[in-house]
Amino acid sequence: METKVRIGLIGAGRIGKLHGENLAHAVPSVDLVAVADPFMNDATRAWAEGMGIQSCYEDPEKVFSDPLIDAVFICSSTNTHAEFIMRAAKAGKHIFCEKPIDTNLDKIREALAAVEQAGVKLQVGFVRRFDHNHKMVHDTVASGRLGKPHIVKVTSRDPDHQPMDYIKVSGGIFMDMTIHDFDMVRYLAGSEVTEVTAYGAALSGAGYDQYGDVDTAIIMMKFENGALGVIDNSRAAHYGYDQRTEVHCDKGCVQVANDLNDQAMISTGDGVEIAKPTWFFLERYNNAFIAEAVAFADAILKNTDTPVGGKDGLMPVMIAMAADTSLREGRPVKLSEIV
Amino acid sequence: METKVRIGLIGAGRIGKLHGENLAHAVPSVDLVAVADPFMNDATRAWAEGMGIQSCYEDPEKVFSDPLIDAVFICSSTNTHAEFIMRAAKAGKHIFCEKPIDTNLDKIREALAAVEQAGVKLQVGFVRRFDHNHKMVHDTVASGRLGKPHIVKVTSRDPDHQPMDYIKVSGGIFMDMTIHDFDMVRYLAGSEVTEVTAYGAALSGAGYDQYGDVDTAIIMMKFENGALGVIDNSRAAHYGYDQRTEVHCDKGCVQVANDLNDQAMISTGDGVEIAKPTWFFLERYNNAFIAEAVAFADAILKNTDTPVGGKDGLMPVMIAMAADTSLREGRPVKLSEIV
Amino acid sequence: METKVRIGLIGAGRIGKLHGENLAHAVPSVDLVAVADPFMNDATRAWAEGMGIQSCYEDPEKVFSDPLIDAVFICSSTNTHAEFIMRAAKAGKHIFCEKPIDTNLDKIREALAAVEQAGVKLQVGFVRRFDHNHKMVHDTVASGRLGKPHIVKVTSRDPDHQPMDYIKVSGGIFMDMTIHDFDMVRYLAGSEVTEVTAYGAALSGAGYDQYGDVDTAIIMMKFENGALGVIDNSRAAHYGYDQRTEVHCDKGCVQVANDLNDQAMISTGDGVEIAKPTWFFLERYNNAFIAEAVAFADAILKNTDTPVGGKDGLMPVMIAMAADTSLREGRPVKLSEIV
Amino acid sequence: METKVRIGLIGAGRIGKLHGENLAHAVPSVDLVAVADPFMNDATRAWAEGMGIQSCYEDPEKVFSDPLIDAVFICSSTNTHAEFIMRAAKAGKHIFCEKPIDTNLDKIREALAAVEQAGVKLQVGFVRRFDHNHKMVHDTVASGRLGKPHIVKVTSRDPDHQPMDYIKVSGGIFMDMTIHDFDMVRYLAGSEVTEVTAYGAALSGAGYDQYGDVDTAIIMMKFENGALGVIDNSRAAHYGYDQRTEVHCDKGCVQVANDLNDQAMISTGDGVEIAKPTWFFLERYNNAFIAEAVAFADAILKNTDTPVGGKDGLMPVMIAMAADTSLREGRPVKLSEIV
Repeated sequence: METKVRIGLIGAGRIGKLHGENLAHAVPSVDLVAVADPFMNDATRAWAEGMGIQSCYEDPEKVFSDPLIDAVFICSSTNTHAEFIMRAAKAGKHIFCEKPIDTNLDKIREALAAVEQAGVKLQVGFVRRFDHNHKMVHDTVASGRLGKPHIVKVTSRDPDHQPMDYIKVSGGIFMDMTIHDFDMVRYLAGSEVTEVTAYGAALSGAGYDQYGDVDTAIIMMKFENGALGVIDNSRAAHYGYDQRTEVHCDKGCVQVANDLNDQAMISTGDGVEIAKPTWFFLERYNNAFIAEAVAFADAILKNTDTPVGGKDGLMPVMIAMAADTSLREGRPVKLSEIV
Repeated sequence: METKVRIGLIGAGRIGKLHGENLAHAVPSVDLVAVADPFMNDATRAWAEGMGIQSCYEDPEKVFSDPLIDAVFICSSTNTHAEFIMRAAKAGKHIFCEKPIDTNLDKIREALAAVEQAGVKLQVGFVRRFDHNHKMVHDTVASGRLGKPHIVKVTSRDPDHQPMDYIKVSGGIFMDMTIHDFDMVRYLAGSEVTEVTAYGAALSGAGYDQYGDVDTAIIMMKFENGALGVIDNSRAAHYGYDQRTEVHCDKGCVQVANDLNDQAMISTGDGVEIAKPTWFFLERYNNAFIAEAVAFADAILKNTDTPVGGKDGLMPVMIAMAADTSLREGRPVKLSEIV
Repeated sequence: METKVRIGLIGAGRIGKLHGENLAHAVPSVDLVAVADPFMNDATRAWAEGMGIQSCYEDPEKVFSDPLIDAVFICSSTNTHAEFIMRAAKAGKHIFCEKPIDTNLDKIREALAAVEQAGVKLQVGFVRRFDHNHKMVHDTVASGRLGKPHIVKVTSRDPDHQPMDYIKVSGGIFMDMTIHDFDMVRYLAGSEVTEVTAYGAALSGAGYDQYGDVDTAIIMMKFENGALGVIDNSRAAHYGYDQRTEVHCDKGCVQVANDLNDQAMISTGDGVEIAKPTWFFLERYNNAFIAEAVAFADAILKNTDTPVGGKDGLMPVMIAMAADTSLREGRPVKLSEIV
Repeated sequence: METKVRIGLIGAGRIGKLHGENLAHAVPSVDLVAVADPFMNDATRAWAEGMGIQSCYEDPEKVFSDPLIDAVFICSSTNTHAEFIMRAAKAGKHIFCEKPIDTNLDKIREALAAVEQAGVKLQVGFVRRFDHNHKMVHDTVASGRLGKPHIVKVTSRDPDHQPMDYIKVSGGIFMDMTIHDFDMVRYLAGSEVTEVTAYGAALSGAGYDQYGDVDTAIIMMKFENGALGVIDNSRAAHYGYDQRTEVHCDKGCVQVANDLNDQAMISTGDGVEIAKPTWFFLERYNNAFIAEAVAFADAILKNTDTPVGGKDGLMPVMIAMAADTSLREGRPVKLSEIV
């Protein structure tokens, strides 16, 4: 590799700093040269200095207009994603954007059109595709050695409740949490979802029903290739981050269990204990965050398609909308209804 | 225990012989004294002699009318179950009946009414409740230590296709195969199903669609206690009998993996192999068949309720009918619609 | 199979009854026709009747002299084994004898000579060879697919202490407990032990040292084929019967974990629990006891060698003696020293 | 934390670069400011620049004499360790030294005396103590919840043969490979080894016997606290890096399995595959290398003892010598013989 991708980071909140640290320390093919955040302050400047970032701005335009910057990581709040994509595209920057692009289909389509017109690359942050476990399921199915997929299963449970203040503005479980799983089933099935039926309930007593939301859900789906799928969700597993995937095919089944904190087994007269699953996404998907950044840089340096493109940003939002309609109306909803 | 339950066996086909051998060899609290089968022949007589059975008949009435017989095991073809239950009840015999009682709700109800009127005990052969694994899931949930159930999951896949001649007359996947899973979800949830939505497809190419049947299905359900449930089925797993259950609750999750043929791990440069799941129900549920017979005898000797009673025989048939309607009509179906 | 092996049982203690029940109920190729026990009483007669055994004797000679009996199961106390083998052999009966044949090499050799002279078959009760797990290790090694064995490992721990009254007369840990493991390493290595070095200690505080015995031991050994071996023993694992075997070979490794009570995993915020290993030999080796009886009957009916013959009865006793010498003298002991 | 530990790296070979990258990227509490290597070249200078290291030297004295440097990482060849420890100690630098300190006891003792006289901190690179799995075994034993340790077991197998050119000068399996395991058993037992007996053989055909070395070994040991231990080694597991530890105690057992490449299970009619163990120490102990560097920095910043001190550097070498004597002389060797 002759050169490195010079990157500007847009947004230095929790997920922005996570990407920033990976880009600075764990992705040899990039240089992280600038960060912009409307709430730029001394703490963020100190963090940036520790990361070796040369320039700190409040105004993202400083990044978009810097001719030495090749690509941006958009890690700002969701409501700014579509606009920043368009501004970055217009400026000719390649774009990594955290999920979701937006919760409005028209805004997503407008952003994707801008990307296409500009001819820049776009990668959407569906990080779980880069997890060693889920990728193994995908690769096994995609290899064809098990024949065609019949049943695609995803178990996805967060370790504990988010604050109700967050839930109030989260957009609902399907748009906030299951959206990752909607991406995952498309990835594993290698096919588009055509219909969903969603069941949901607020069972925990934590108060989701106050906001018309649920904490427990099961969503069935049909795929274009004939396969059937199912996702089960809980907002609070308590024992850790429960992230299992499975595809049953013509000739057999591939499934992955959770990564555990360790491989210990303690056996006494009282019983046998093993380790809990890793606690949450930072622990579970740490290497996947690095891998997705490496993949983005590779796509730029080798001028190939990014592994998670514009359509991958659009479809999960549409499926989430269909699931929401299904839950509210108590009926199967075809994706063709979502416009 | 002062005395033994004297048992007559009705039907000496595959499942009848399986029960007969367990009753003769593995259930100390019973005496198997007679067998009736319309196709009684020398081979069956020889088998009966080997089991120490004194009397062999063609006519089941000989069993029903024998005053020394306390109870019958009805293992004849499904279309005779309801009638034999009524005749046995009228004769004052306690009744173990293989599943399903019938596929017609009125006939089931008539049979159950006869049982109630006669005051005899009835146990229906949902054997999986007696499996050490599924029972552990049930007992953990029922103990209340995990709080209320939120998500009930059953994976149930047969090892390989049945002959199409069988499929043609099987009554369809829900009545023939999933009926066990419908019993299982009621058992695990500790609550009745109120609504189901079923997806199904014929994906294997083995010909199920010729008979309006499917080989792959996912069924979601709601329970009275608020929990949600899901079953996934395949007619042909190929790697063995895949029978996993899981209940996610307020405070955590209990799940069971498959019993394997052995605990071996073979590691080489080419990869790591472990054993396959046990092949089919004979291998997997052998001890459960014994345990259900012991439980039936215990209920008689101690004059307690049988663990799987008349309602347990009725409800899975109703759920199967609802699932079938859902699949055909493409909509959620409430159990209250099934009359 | 045209005919059955008619068997007489010598000794109706715990292990005798265990064999008797298997022979009566689970081994179709035999008829258990007689039992002899010097302490014959009503309880044993009732048990025998329940098993369908026709004749109950105090004097084993009644069994040895019955011309209709083909074979005997010698399950009496160890100090009678050698004599009963000789009497049975002289009477032309095939012999299954519980382990060990004797703890005196000359008496073993005398018994084996009598067997050879009489031309009857002898099988020694090293039941673990018939366990599905250990057999899988053996068969994998014996198949040659992993190349030659390099390291043979056995972990063997009893669930809890035996009464000190038993320990006092047990002959010591090597002769009483490790003798099974000495048979196992020969079986797995496919080669004879040439040297052992034993470490042992009384660490539990249960009082083994009062009798010059140990509760904890590690024994290394060399095999004729060059492989090295190691056994670790504890008298009290507390969590169950810990019985693991492993062979590391030229091209890889085969190992078996314990059979567990069930396949459940219970996950909560407090931790993750799985099932304990099965408690003791009755639970763990139940099917192996049946399989060894089937194999004995097969060897008679097909006139083939028994799978565990006279030399297999002799060698573990010699290895146990070498281990005992090694522990007492603090040095490696060659098997050639044991005469 | 107010300040950072300024570190100079001595030796920029494979293990030096590994430590350098961790110090530069993954240990926030240090600044890696200099590197010295007698073979300093453009490639190493470029690597150093990428790591943000300011100074590159051929002569380590430049590092020892730099008053701004607080501590050194000695990653040079083993024969230089003792001398560099002494020079660093004299210069008042804290010292992290890769294992082993030396293979000559007098040189080790001389180096340790210099460290003690200078009052600087010394940590020896027994990295496995910082692995999440082995640490869990240690912490469980050290907590006392299982009572006293009875049996300490280590399985340690490298994935494949080293080149014979390396084996020729490696010092033999015990000093080169088992030395890590000798440290591990001391760490897990919480007690010193008092005696060892070693068995070894060259079984692979790769040629170890040409150099008087072995490729397969089993070593038993006794500990001061009464516990017994055993290590089994192979130079070539082929399926990956097999690193399992286990301690059986008064009240139960704690054991760890290998970390695997992923948690996938692929089930077909042909069998069931799971992932292989991670390949070698870079994959398996990556996080442990970071953790040991963090622990070293912490000890300096908080002025506490390092977790792996001088005695921990000395004892494994003595045990390795005892094992070597045992193998050559065919007898148990007490540690008190090694002087």
